[in-house]
Amino acid sequence: MSAAPSIADALFRPRSIALVGASGDQNKHASLPHQYLRRHGYGGEIFPINAYRDSVFGERAFARIDDIGRPVDHAFIMLPTDAVKDAVSDCCRAGVRCATILSNGFAESGDSGRRRQNELVEMARDAGLRLLGPNSLGVINLPEHVALSANEILSLPELRPGRYSLVSQSGSLIGAVLSRGIERGIGFSKMISVGNEADLGVAETGDLLVDDPGTDAILLFLETVRNPDALAAMARRAFAAGKPVIAFRVGRSEVGETLAASHTGALVGSGAAVDAFLADIGVVRVETMDSFLEVAPLVKGHRPAPGRRVSVVTTTGGGGTLVVDALSRHGITIVPPSQACVDSLAGQGIAIERAPLIDLTLAGTNAKTYGPVLSALMASQDCDLVVSVVGSSSQFRPDRAVLPIVSATRDNPDKPVAAFLTPHAATSLSLLAEAGVAAFRTPESCADAVRAFFDWRVPRDAAPVTAPPEARPALEAAAGPALDAEAAARVFGALGVPVAPERVLPADAAAIDAMALDDLPYPVAAKILSPDIAHKTEAEGVALAIAAPQALKEACRRILAGAARHAPGARLLGIQVQPMLRGLGEALVGFRRDPAVGPVVTLGAGGVLAEVYRDVSVRTAPVDTETARAMIAEVKAFAPLRGYRGLPRGDLDALAEAVAAFSRLAALDVAEAEANPVLVRAEGEGVVALDALVVKGGGHAD
Amino acid sequence: MSAAPSIADALFRPRSIALVGASGDQNKHASLPHQYLRRHGYGGEIFPINAYRDSVFGERAFARIDDIGRPVDHAFIMLPTDAVKDAVSDCCRAGVRCATILSNGFAESGDSGRRRQNELVEMARDAGLRLLGPNSLGVINLPEHVALSANEILSLPELRPGRYSLVSQSGSLIGAVLSRGIERGIGFSKMISVGNEADLGVAETGDLLVDDPGTDAILLFLETVRNPDALAAMARRAFAAGKPVIAFRVGRSEVGETLAASHTGALVGSGAAVDAFLADIGVVRVETMDSFLEVAPLVKGHRPAPGRRVSVVTTTGGGGTLVVDALSRHGITIVPPSQACVDSLAGQGIAIERAPLIDLTLAGTNAKTYGPVLSALMASQDCDLVVSVVGSSSQFRPDRAVLPIVSATRDNPDKPVAAFLTPHAATSLSLLAEAGVAAFRTPESCADAVRAFFDWRVPRDAAPVTAPPEARPALEAAAGPALDAEAAARVFGALGVPVAPERVLPADAAAIDAMALDDLPYPVAAKILSPDIAHKTEAEGVALAIAAPQALKEACRRILAGAARHAPGARLLGIQVQPMLRGLGEALVGFRRDPAVGPVVTLGAGGVLAEVYRDVSVRTAPVDTETARAMIAEVKAFAPLRGYRGLPRGDLDALAEAVAAFSRLAALDVAEAEANPVLVRAEGEGVVALDALVVKGGGHAD
Repeated sequence: MSAAPSIADALFRPRSIALVGASGDQNKHASLPHQYLRRHGYGGEIFPINAYRDSVFGERAFARIDDIGRPVDHAFIMLPTDAVKDAVSDCCRAGVRCATILSNGFAESGDSGRRRQNELVEMARDAGLRLLGPNSLGVINLPEHVALSANEILSLPELRPGRYSLVSQSGSLIGAVLSRGIERGIGFSKMISVGNEADLGVAETGDLLVDDPGTDAILLFLETVRNPDALAAMARRAFAAGKPVIAFRVGRSEVGETLAASHTGALVGSGAAVDAFLADIGVVRVETMDSFLEVAPLVKGHRPAPGRRVSVVTTTGGGGTLVVDALSRHGITIVPPSQACVDSLAGQGIAIERAPLIDLTLAGTNAKTYGPVLSALMASQDCDLVVSVVGSSSQFRPDRAVLPIVSATRDNPDKPVAAFLTPHAATSLSLLAEAGVAAFRTPESCADAVRAFFDWRVPRDAAPVTAPPEARPALEAAAGPALDAEAAARVFGALGVPVAPERVLPADAAAIDAMALDDLPYPVAAKILSPDIAHKTEAEGVALAIAAPQALKEACRRILAGAARHAPGARLLGIQVQPMLRGLGEALVGFRRDPAVGPVVTLGAGGVLAEVYRDVSVRTAPVDTETARAMIAEVKAFAPLRGYRGLPRGDLDALAEAVAAFSRLAALDVAEAEANPVLVRAEGEGVVALDALVVKGGGHAD
Repeated sequence: MSAAPSIADALFRPRSIALVGASGDQNKHASLPHQYLRRHGYGGEIFPINAYRDSVFGERAFARIDDIGRPVDHAFIMLPTDAVKDAVSDCCRAGVRCATILSNGFAESGDSGRRRQNELVEMARDAGLRLLGPNSLGVINLPEHVALSANEILSLPELRPGRYSLVSQSGSLIGAVLSRGIERGIGFSKMISVGNEADLGVAETGDLLVDDPGTDAILLFLETVRNPDALAAMARRAFAAGKPVIAFRVGRSEVGETLAASHTGALVGSGAAVDAFLADIGVVRVETMDSFLEVAPLVKGHRPAPGRRVSVVTTTGGGGTLVVDALSRHGITIVPPSQACVDSLAGQGIAIERAPLIDLTLAGTNAKTYGPVLSALMASQDCDLVVSVVGSSSQFRPDRAVLPIVSATRDNPDKPVAAFLTPHAATSLSLLAEAGVAAFRTPESCADAVRAFFDWRVPRDAAPVTAPPEARPALEAAAGPALDAEAAARVFGALGVPVAPERVLPADAAAIDAMALDDLPYPVAAKILSPDIAHKTEAEGVALAIAAPQALKEACRRILAGAARHAPGARLLGIQVQPMLRGLGEALVGFRRDPAVGPVVTLGAGGVLAEVYRDVSVRTAPVDTETARAMIAEVKAFAPLRGYRGLPRGDLDALAEAVAAFSRLAALDVAEAEANPVLVRAEGEGVVALDALVVKGGGHAD
């Protein structure tokens, strides 16, 4: 027996493949992998496993893998659900290195399927067998002619090898990407359908691609995240290796659903949490199908940009305006060329204006004009990226303005360039793709890719998650799971989040009437305290600007009556009285453990409009103050606090510190928490949380 | 001489064409129309006009049009700017019916060019000659083989005739649309580059297309609107004729610029005003290049939908999720099939679940399943539109799920269907296009088209613009152009917009001190009145909740000091004192005359966030109360007033009435106006404007 292959070799370039459940009937689905392997030039050995035939498509068939008697690098299992276990057991016994399981009926189908899947994983682990799937459509290695998949897209007579690899949680999307790539002149290296990710998942196969010399960029089609720590480690390795990781995530619609169901500060659904996670680990996230296919060369070879300034050069005013429009919808600024740039071109006899859109018109549609203008923009320090638009000449005369893009990109490798061609110009698009230039079919995909590039960040360090020593005891001392406001305020205080002083009165009007209440810092605010009343204002549970003891007593009576009316069964823990503090604005800071990606911190403006506009910033928790400042900058509603229209500025430094302190809840056994509202006072005057909510559970209880 | 042709015949199917300035040098731009006419099968006579040659491409050449001695239906003028006038004069003398002017250097190049252009128009009008351009790339009639254009896209060996026509303000976009259409199997009838629209513009050529039996839908590529009344009339005629008018407008980026420059309630730039205008006249407005090409069959044959409910059926979960995600970003609801629908399919032996995404999987990818499911959804009253997704089978096996879409569409012509194919499937896309089914290349273009269809409205009637009789004298009595708040309030009052009672104190602290001020409805608010101070709060010009005369006097002193500090040169007209009114929310209502489309009314929430979020609704003015209600529904910030999260509802009926009354400013000589804030009180309690701004000018002064 020859040496056991590496898992990368067994997965991507097996010397021998057993097709378990292979059919010899051309019309049967189970015959497809055999046909596709041959059609696309597989050079290794194929062993059909079929107990009822001697041969399949001219290849000797075996009843079981054990019967082969020769080493099998990769088994492809296409059996009914119930027969999979025996086949995996055979693989283990025969020393197979890797098995791809096409069959379904496992974790995707419920609890009993999950148990079946776990059995396979345990069995395989003990034998050193690695699994892809179940519910995987297979794996394709285009440059090395291994088309080990049942994806019908492989009926294509020819595939297009290239240097990008795809890992997909949806098998059918591989066909979509593969066929669209061929049409666009974009080739692929490895394409992997990970299915249920029982063993080899997105992170593990991505890791193999980081080390794969045939892979320049790793594309991920994601429906969820199953192993965030491993994915983060893979993304950091890929970043260090200069291989962009590009994700297209679906499932955004769930955001709406989660929002509608939420009753606390969990302002965002899992989709936004996953997006925040992907951004934090340095993944480039696109939002359109076209840009997913097209963006890689825009990122490859570059680092995240210092700014978001774009220069646009065009041969057609209409086409240029299309791109400028699409960019402006993403809030991206188009900058005119600098005077130095204009002067330097004038020295070469080329006159351009200092307008945001540099329109060379038909007269400038030639290599002697377009090339130098593009090179001058690329060499300039005034922009972070150049968009290069070419009109109808791109269809029949690539020499005029398309080839100059190729030369300019070669000569100025440090500045990212995005090309948009206005007509259908297949030859030019392929020519640009082959030269490694990012080229876009539509102004919208071009703009989305530019946005994705600018949103790209250096992966955050995997910082240790710690909380101040006094925080844990404060949490443990409180009754749970939902802490009352006083206990929650103590936890916040221990973390370093400023909380307004308060006094809690009993939920008993007669008892309150009997109190003096003359030592309170009037004017005060009073709020009902109840774990069962999430929206206090709606329940008439809030009274503001109370000036004196008697008015406070009346307010408490009204609040208790309101609670009895709106929430008859609610447990009433008391009435919280705080000084009436005024700020320039309000913030809401939320924390929760996302089922997919773990602890996340959310920042928005206070009030219902944060929900209505979904104007929130999300990060995986904890965050440092610098990241918290970046979050504050993302929230549009804070514009007045940033001095918009000359309004007085809020203490956003203090808010950043409070957000960072709050985010260290990640280190505690807390499932969910909210500081709402956090008053933001004038610069230098700090912030103060008026209300605290903490729910224990799910976290670092040790 | 034969009978003079109609303008439609002369423009689209001239029997004879004079090419003025024709070159016989194949490499010269001015030789292209001749070459293209021949290449694409023009069957009429061509007369090259060239004083230096006897013949051009084998055709006898003439020195001037007058020399031809035979009727010329259409002249195509490709001369230097200065020579165009003589050529048009020749056309007039020779009785030419229509002249297309390719030459530039006219209105697009400034005032002297505009004068040159006006001379041409006057000369032509007197002679009954119609002009296309100047600065037009020409006109193409594909089914009738007239490729009268210098657009290099016509180098294509073959064009694709069809039943959609395009009118474009950008010549180069015609090439983009034409070439992309060929690739997608979408053909065109007439394609017209209108250039500067000196005579035949978007409205006039569109009008010819309404009457053109070869045109089923009219596509407009717009950079601006030059003749809104004519465009509105054309769009209404097209709607009545059942021909969708579809617009792709560029120039959105200007919105940002206008916003930044504006200092009053003109919350939106011209782009938003144009979009509002287009929606008002029943135009379907798309936002992506792909959907512009693809949307026509989704609209053709239908009326604006009663709701926005979508059913989605798919053969691939991944592909279906892509579309659902893209739709959800436009706030479109996916509805599960009704129980009746599920039951009826069960009766046919087809089991589907009541899930929003109806995933038939590989097992259901056949005509016997896909067809009945699609037909059942289309026949159902539970949805307004069906999205039909097909996976990899669409590439090689259109019989499985693509042909069933064609049959179902034929059998259920009343329900719009949008098809999205996940792989690159050129044959299936062409097949669907030829069958008149709306098919989309990307989930994003599909979602944009569905959004555009749902945003489509019946054209509003061109209602007479009138104001109540007392409004005009109120305006005329006021000094202008910027009215003081009292005068502006009188105009609003006359229109029927409720305005808070007020008293104006002199801008003189000593004089105020000497007053009793004990008859005011305390608590009151005080505000500086100055035509030079637009942002009063920022200038410390506002004091609220003033409880008594002495406090009012102090407040006035502070306000006057603040005005002196913030706006030293400002004219101070007094201090406005009003009762402190409280509402559940605030609105801002703005009015202005847009340079392109005329009077528009804008509604947003009060405060800076309306600007920050651009959360405004815009319509051409005036609006009736029903339209005003629709505007209110579009403003997200009014969610609390609509009862979001159980909050008390505001009097939105009264707000609608106030907006409608306010919008009748369109009938007066008013350039700009704003009611800000308008307090919205509880249901049944009405609304009241606290501040009024009116600037005279630009309108119906008669």
